[in-house]
Amino acid sequence: MKPINFAVIGYGGMGSYHVHTIMLQDQERIQVIGTYDISEGRQTVSAEKGHKLYPSYEAALGDEQVEAVLIATPNDVHKELAIQALQAGKHVICEKPVTLTTEEFDEILAVAQETNCVFMVHQNRRWDPDFLIIRELCKNQQIGDIFQIESRVQGANGIPGDWRHLKAHGGGMVLDWGVHLFDQLLFLIDQPIKKISADLSYILGDEVDDGFSCWITFENGLRAVIEVGTTNYTKLPRWYVKGTEGTAKIEDWDLSGELIAASKSEIFSTPQPIQAGVGLTKTMAPPSEDATVKLPFPNSEAEYVSFYCNFYEVVRHQADPIVKNCEVRKVMELIDIILMAKPEIVNEKELQIV
Amino acid sequence: MKPINFAVIGYGGMGSYHVHTIMLQDQERIQVIGTYDISEGRQTVSAEKGHKLYPSYEAALGDEQVEAVLIATPNDVHKELAIQALQAGKHVICEKPVTLTTEEFDEILAVAQETNCVFMVHQNRRWDPDFLIIRELCKNQQIGDIFQIESRVQGANGIPGDWRHLKAHGGGMVLDWGVHLFDQLLFLIDQPIKKISADLSYILGDEVDDGFSCWITFENGLRAVIEVGTTNYTKLPRWYVKGTEGTAKIEDWDLSGELIAASKSEIFSTPQPIQAGVGLTKTMAPPSEDATVKLPFPNSEAEYVSFYCNFYEVVRHQADPIVKNCEVRKVMELIDIILMAKPEIVNEKELQIV
Repeated sequence: MKPINFAVIGYGGMGSYHVHTIMLQDQERIQVIGTYDISEGRQTVSAEKGHKLYPSYEAALGDEQVEAVLIATPNDVHKELAIQALQAGKHVICEKPVTLTTEEFDEILAVAQETNCVFMVHQNRRWDPDFLIIRELCKNQQIGDIFQIESRVQGANGIPGDWRHLKAHGGGMVLDWGVHLFDQLLFLIDQPIKKISADLSYILGDEVDDGFSCWITFENGLRAVIEVGTTNYTKLPRWYVKGTEGTAKIEDWDLSGELIAASKSEIFSTPQPIQAGVGLTKTMAPPSEDATVKLPFPNSEAEYVSFYCNFYEVVRHQADPIVKNCEVRKVMELIDIILMAKPEIVNEKELQIV
Repeated sequence: MKPINFAVIGYGGMGSYHVHTIMLQDQERIQVIGTYDISEGRQTVSAEKGHKLYPSYEAALGDEQVEAVLIATPNDVHKELAIQALQAGKHVICEKPVTLTTEEFDEILAVAQETNCVFMVHQNRRWDPDFLIIRELCKNQQIGDIFQIESRVQGANGIPGDWRHLKAHGGGMVLDWGVHLFDQLLFLIDQPIKKISADLSYILGDEVDDGFSCWITFENGLRAVIEVGTTNYTKLPRWYVKGTEGTAKIEDWDLSGELIAASKSEIFSTPQPIQAGVGLTKTMAPPSEDATVKLPFPNSEAEYVSFYCNFYEVVRHQADPIVKNCEVRKVMELIDIILMAKPEIVNEKELQIV
């Protein structure tokens, strides 16, 4: 097994995290042989870790030992750096969001095709255990047919860092966590989108969205709610998923939560009315004990190999990429539509992403 | 203090609950002197409780001792019974939803005005402690300006009872729990509605909605989400409310939940990135401990008197009703719009309810 030699471009939060993860898990297949960052501070950090420093991007691309580059820079320069690398004959892994628009992404794809180099986007959250539980539920019918998926991440720290506040650099939450949640959703649901509405929030007064709510209806009727918030001092569950025979709630990345299904017993006691506020309710009373059953969450292991393992197989043995560029492109199309919305109104468009 | 003599019309779940509550709390002001129900079974139950039974609605209205009637029948006959009672010179308390449409309600209001009788709708959930906590938060600024209110009730028992499944009787969840949640919201937010969208659910295959999601934007920008579900085997919090300086979450009618506000301290540590799934996140990491503060929920007592006490004051001393007919009418206008939606599409209308 001959590892792929990598140069890591952008040694910030994500770049250094990639290097760390690769060195822990994927050294057999991936070898980081140098880094490049425009910041002197980050160069120093990288040097201290023992990495070779390239004096310029051109120097990294000029290094014949380098077979591939990993781009983990601010979002707005992904396109330019990716095209330059592809033209230098390097394979490319690019951080999300791949670009700021579908149009930019298409420019990259054209060059990748011309140069016959691999271009793959690092949509790592397809391997998140919480997501994999929901994915398994969509397949195994434990709670029947899934007809509603609510996927939320909510924090109270505002928009982090520096360039993430700026529109020119591709800041904002749609292009940050939004990309992950949309990628997961479209990977999960193999259906054309029938309808989409979005509502961006600008609570913090930034020029970019500090969160958003998005409602998607698929051709088969399945509804999804995607929400990202950065001014949420307490939060709603990470996942709330309704099936015809049960409901799943995953509170957090620690996989706390519950999976409750209708029991298969034919006869069960009717629920007793409960006092709710100053009134009674039978409708909203807990179901009687024999009417439901609490199930363990299904397995949260991916049946596909790790991202880097797959990248290796794609480069060395023409395997199918797990993160396909056509999938990434669907997410970018969706984001194009959402970012066209004015902050104060709900944007609603009929669209057909197939 | 001379109590108001009542006849209770419809001795089902709500009718009998009213009688029970009145006898516990309001005997000084309200005296139930008889009941009428078309069902023999319910007549028997009422007789067993020691109530006088009227042989017909006309008999109840013909009883000169009766000053007021309480209407707690299926929704579709509220209008006809109310008008008949008002024309007989009786004051009326009517269960919610007051009618099936605004138009029907206007017919009642016209007769109430002609006959100079009091007509009041029993919107009892304005006295719910969970609601009163949220109401207090909207006033006391503990979490700054409120800009998002999410109000949900979710159960797993389907639509209860018999007539509630039928369109002709005014069944469905918009006209059931929906009325409560819309009434609370509009009582809370004294602003014109700018925009409303709704999505009704028909999971159970009934001819009426078994739940719905509704998104409302008010003139001042405040957003509200109102959701009712009857196929939710596990549920989302009853209230989720965002302010500029904090967030409130009330899980259930037991008032569990939390109120977290930004701390006033000028300097606090930046949050540390956390492992979330297979990635790191600083944005969604819990805020550092000195950045937020957990507060107790505010007082959940109404500053207004009880429903029956108010009704007594309205009838005897021309007090202002707490549940005003103009408020009830706004809710009916909203419901008119929601029920015009086709089940499979989101209905969105510009409207001005002032």
